[in-house]
Amino acid sequence: MIRKLVIFGVGLIGGSLALALRGANYCQTVVGCSRNAAHLQKAIDLGVIDSFTLDPQAAVQDADMVLLAVPMGAMGRLLEQIKPALPADAVLTDAGSTKGSIVAEVEQVFGKGFTRFVPGHPIAGREKSGVEAAIPDLYINRRVILTPLPHTDPTALRAVEDMWRMTGAVLESMPVALHDSVLAATSHLPHVLAFSLVDTLLNLPMREDIFRYAAGGFRDFTRIASSDPVMWRDICLANKDSIVEMIGKLQADLSEFATLVERQDGEGLYTRMSRAKQARDSYIAYLENHKASVQETQDDQ
Amino acid sequence: MIRKLVIFGVGLIGGSLALALRGANYCQTVVGCSRNAAHLQKAIDLGVIDSFTLDPQAAVQDADMVLLAVPMGAMGRLLEQIKPALPADAVLTDAGSTKGSIVAEVEQVFGKGFTRFVPGHPIAGREKSGVEAAIPDLYINRRVILTPLPHTDPTALRAVEDMWRMTGAVLESMPVALHDSVLAATSHLPHVLAFSLVDTLLNLPMREDIFRYAAGGFRDFTRIASSDPVMWRDICLANKDSIVEMIGKLQADLSEFATLVERQDGEGLYTRMSRAKQARDSYIAYLENHKASVQETQDDQ
Repeated sequence: MIRKLVIFGVGLIGGSLALALRGANYCQTVVGCSRNAAHLQKAIDLGVIDSFTLDPQAAVQDADMVLLAVPMGAMGRLLEQIKPALPADAVLTDAGSTKGSIVAEVEQVFGKGFTRFVPGHPIAGREKSGVEAAIPDLYINRRVILTPLPHTDPTALRAVEDMWRMTGAVLESMPVALHDSVLAATSHLPHVLAFSLVDTLLNLPMREDIFRYAAGGFRDFTRIASSDPVMWRDICLANKDSIVEMIGKLQADLSEFATLVERQDGEGLYTRMSRAKQARDSYIAYLENHKASVQETQDDQ
Repeated sequence: MIRKLVIFGVGLIGGSLALALRGANYCQTVVGCSRNAAHLQKAIDLGVIDSFTLDPQAAVQDADMVLLAVPMGAMGRLLEQIKPALPADAVLTDAGSTKGSIVAEVEQVFGKGFTRFVPGHPIAGREKSGVEAAIPDLYINRRVILTPLPHTDPTALRAVEDMWRMTGAVLESMPVALHDSVLAATSHLPHVLAFSLVDTLLNLPMREDIFRYAAGGFRDFTRIASSDPVMWRDICLANKDSIVEMIGKLQADLSEFATLVERQDGEGLYTRMSRAKQARDSYIAYLENHKASVQETQDDQ
């Protein structure tokens, strides 16, 4: 049970959490905070939060749970702002798409020994974003990954676990570095690729024809290039090392592929593509078998 | 009106054409030919063809229209086989995904002056393949691209145009080289990327976690990696130059992207990703506006 939940950044992620917890009567009060009063008023009108303030220090007063759901580029400054007023027994958690960067920022502001921060990443999304898109059942059967540190207070961890469990989410725990590598591979790299592919095509002389003749496969493949550039800029900056490493690995694979094509090595191409097809087909079969337990998201970050 | 249509390779593409033409009473007889009698018998049972033979020379006897719908790697040998028996007034066309290679093969077998070959590429597909997946309305509102050569006989071209028009397809005409570049960009490159991405992930130490945590975006993005490796091997070999060129361009773009990430150039990243998002969104808006006229295919090649 949470007494006062403060949500910084009341959009799809924070708003859906608030709706789920309020629906379950798990929160006495939910306070929203951002820099946009009209937007926060809308969140009140939609029944997502109880009240709001534009002042981060006022917001965290008497709070026992604080969720940071602002764009990752805004986290550092926000931490500085709330530091003087954050109650000693409050639990701090976040919803950022990468974990190493926020862990470093919290350490920098609150010190290395700070035990009441629980890094979190709810893997849920919809095509739409913003508080208008918030729904109480967004997290049902969706994954929420927590990456507690060795010195994280077990009580704080349990409080965050309990909170997410109330939303119907499936909880997972893994080290910060593994989280960032896995997400770099499965989410960040595909996004980088989609943005780059569209950009490559834009620079071709026959781009008019290209966009005219592009068909279904291209549409699916580039869907994620329609994602929010601010969020993805922040993710790229925050998960720099893993993303650069993944781009390098893919570049090496692409070079090998190009060499096989150039050498007209049909057998080599067939082997490579069969292996990929087989892995992808097994992955889909795995998903089919686990459909009941964990839902896929439409727009994971 | 076609007297005798011969289809080499009675699968989804050839079978659906046969069903559409028979449904429109546009063919007196449809003869199937491949190396698999059981498969051809099935095509008869399904009402797709009237009769079959395993002998390419017997097949083309008295034919006025011959469609090559075998895998591209099998085209060259087939051309050699039918050459001695192809009637002088028969029209030869194909359904291959690249056009430069088949044009070269036809020239090699029939000579540079051969006027009765009309290179074609029906851009249509379904998740399923094979004659069992053939349907009479596959081509309704789908694009069929023809790439006639300067010396192509206008009567032959008209015969192929009329045939496809009967299926409800939207006809387009463009030069061979443009076709191959545009398809390399919009279809072949995305496929190469999807195959390579899955392969890159397979080689990572944490691949178990990766496939476990991969979510919606990854699934869409790699869907085309489940395509037929034989077909894609042949496409890569046949459209070698364009594909290698496109991989090179994408590699250059990816390197630039990686440099921006490494330099923590947030503005550069934002500019690049916004541009891609805008182009992709306009493309989707364009598609929405043209939905009524040209249908997207599920699995274009």
